[in-house]
Amino acid sequence: MPFQRMITLTTDFGITEHYVGAMKGVIYNIHPAAQVVDITNSVQSFDILDGALAISQAYSYFPKDTVHVVVVDPGVGGPRRPLLAIVGEHLFVAPDNGVLSLVYEREERITVRHITSDHYFHQPVSNTFHGRDIFAPVAAYLSKGVETSKFGEEITDYVRFLAPSPKPEGVNAWKGVVLKTDKFGNLITNIRPKDVPQIFDGTAAAFKITVGKAEVTKLVSSYAAGAQGELFAILGSSGFLEIFVNKAAASRLAGADKGSEVGLALM
Amino acid sequence: MPFQRMITLTTDFGITEHYVGAMKGVIYNIHPAAQVVDITNSVQSFDILDGALAISQAYSYFPKDTVHVVVVDPGVGGPRRPLLAIVGEHLFVAPDNGVLSLVYEREERITVRHITSDHYFHQPVSNTFHGRDIFAPVAAYLSKGVETSKFGEEITDYVRFLAPSPKPEGVNAWKGVVLKTDKFGNLITNIRPKDVPQIFDGTAAAFKITVGKAEVTKLVSSYAAGAQGELFAILGSSGFLEIFVNKAAASRLAGADKGSEVGLALM
Amino acid sequence: MPFQRMITLTTDFGITEHYVGAMKGVIYNIHPAAQVVDITNSVQSFDILDGALAISQAYSYFPKDTVHVVVVDPGVGGPRRPLLAIVGEHLFVAPDNGVLSLVYEREERITVRHITSDHYFHQPVSNTFHGRDIFAPVAAYLSKGVETSKFGEEITDYVRFLAPSPKPEGVNAWKGVVLKTDKFGNLITNIRPKDVPQIFDGTAAAFKITVGKAEVTKLVSSYAAGAQGELFAILGSSGFLEIFVNKAAASRLAGADKGSEVGLALM
Repeated sequence: MPFQRMITLTTDFGITEHYVGAMKGVIYNIHPAAQVVDITNSVQSFDILDGALAISQAYSYFPKDTVHVVVVDPGVGGPRRPLLAIVGEHLFVAPDNGVLSLVYEREERITVRHITSDHYFHQPVSNTFHGRDIFAPVAAYLSKGVETSKFGEEITDYVRFLAPSPKPEGVNAWKGVVLKTDKFGNLITNIRPKDVPQIFDGTAAAFKITVGKAEVTKLVSSYAAGAQGELFAILGSSGFLEIFVNKAAASRLAGADKGSEVGLALM
Repeated sequence: MPFQRMITLTTDFGITEHYVGAMKGVIYNIHPAAQVVDITNSVQSFDILDGALAISQAYSYFPKDTVHVVVVDPGVGGPRRPLLAIVGEHLFVAPDNGVLSLVYEREERITVRHITSDHYFHQPVSNTFHGRDIFAPVAAYLSKGVETSKFGEEITDYVRFLAPSPKPEGVNAWKGVVLKTDKFGNLITNIRPKDVPQIFDGTAAAFKITVGKAEVTKLVSSYAAGAQGELFAILGSSGFLEIFVNKAAASRLAGADKGSEVGLALM
Repeated sequence: MPFQRMITLTTDFGITEHYVGAMKGVIYNIHPAAQVVDITNSVQSFDILDGALAISQAYSYFPKDTVHVVVVDPGVGGPRRPLLAIVGEHLFVAPDNGVLSLVYEREERITVRHITSDHYFHQPVSNTFHGRDIFAPVAAYLSKGVETSKFGEEITDYVRFLAPSPKPEGVNAWKGVVLKTDKFGNLITNIRPKDVPQIFDGTAAAFKITVGKAEVTKLVSSYAAGAQGELFAILGSSGFLEIFVNKAAASRLAGADKGSEVGLALM
């Protein structure tokens, strides 16, 4: 089998229109034997942080040298640059708007190139759909083994933001936020073990988390360990503190959702 | 081409988060040439019967020796066992919570193993996401041809429930339920030809089905045969009695949905 | 590698039930090495125009000789014929209800066959699910290289409708319609550059578009060029005039949706 890099897609294009289909068509037209896998195409529209969370949670499970296409791109057609980033053992093509920030955070070796070699683009290049016209064809050529240096010059001034961390609020108290509500209604907060190790390692005698109209005071280690109908905290598979209800939607019970404030106090 | 088993996914992880992407990453990392096909990742959250219906309706169309990954797993992290089931000519990996019950019902040859060989797992194994840490990697190794006996010992006390059948209610009357509303708004009931053959073979002079606020008295053999704006019964492609409206949502017209009671009386 | 045609799917079967999974199972059972790509399975239920838009926007990006399966089929089980259309450099299998009309519009070479060779069907053929029983298996055999002439006789009286065009309303005024609201909330109208070239080539001094409760008087060339919170017009990637808001849903701001009337007047 010839050299091949796998391709993944993480976009906010949705699954109802033809947008993702058009991107895949462009890829297969350039590389009929390409292997293309959706991570998700249902990132919240225009929401760069939501896209950053999705790709940062999934990329590392794929084979090294995979090409991850990440298109949450409200600035398409404006001055923002298209990027090819080589981060750890993975490749990423994405607009230069910070959507790779949480990937950068997890890796030490980062090389970022400004994609300028337009002979790899789908012509004519529109002002409205670079997923189809730039990112998909660049990924297709990368998947065939074209060297990363062929796509443009290295840059260092790419956009990078910090993951939103909980803020201290006086002594032994923090204010965080719900990053997202997942399909189960679990409230995924921005609180990580490194932020407040005491509640995860058991050294805190007691704690109180407030979110929406709810108070949560118990941390368990599996969803099944939560008594039914009651809100619990858990360290989720994504590495964040989650608020959940066993077999029900915590978002509904707590009256909270993406963006809701999360209070955390050690007692 | 080397030996390969196809892999399918049936889960309640949804398509909005990275969960399914992470599972696929784990699979491809173990077996880059794997062929992975989604049946659906939109099973109703925590709903084992809904997952059981989905996999039982789809698996038999796939090539024999396909590995079907079925993860509706509210008990993850608790005592429920991970299973490898060899059922008829297909393989299944799933939690031991009954989600394979409707598959077992369709086949005679059933061998079930308790997956215990943790060198096939993605390490470290979390308490919250065995889809990624156990079921995906086990499926990947199976897809590469690892023998089923390598994954754990055979067991016979696996969980198995009966499909919910309509209950007799006096003479020539039954009470059933809407199993699900599909994307078209068709109300899929739990009534099958074996339950009330008279209405399907034409020997019943007349019948009345009540569901929501509607009464249905006519059975037709195609959706197109239904007069517009009117509710009809049909034997659907899944083998269940459905209530539908030609080019419209029966669920809306009848005011009924998953879980609604269905009355059936022969006249 | 043996001869192979890629397969795409465009259907209204949704992603929540097993329907698309069953179609893929049938395909892989006939042709285990098939390459199957979803364009979208979320076409509006029963909506032939919506399906026609989706496939017409996506097919041309795929490699020539791709087999596009297009199943929006409210007439399943009735007299409508199953078709194999060779249109330009692509193949299509679809019901004869006009769902390929917007593809026909883009190509000059059109050959349409009535699929009658039932030894290529999945037996028994139901009256309710020809996606699984006819269109999927025919696509699978086509993907293996079976000649198109084997599936049935050529016909010329296939169903074909015209794309809905804006209608003149007096002097320098037109009435159009919103064809669809996409995932971003962009209102995609049926107005194309050929209909009113003046607003796209800059020769119109000024124009006014009315849609829902909104008036739009500015055309820009990228989404990012639109001031936030304000409605703008743009020539979208699909070749239609769109109404959008930078990083927000125009449908919400304008109070308009699929089917809303669009007025356009040159000033």
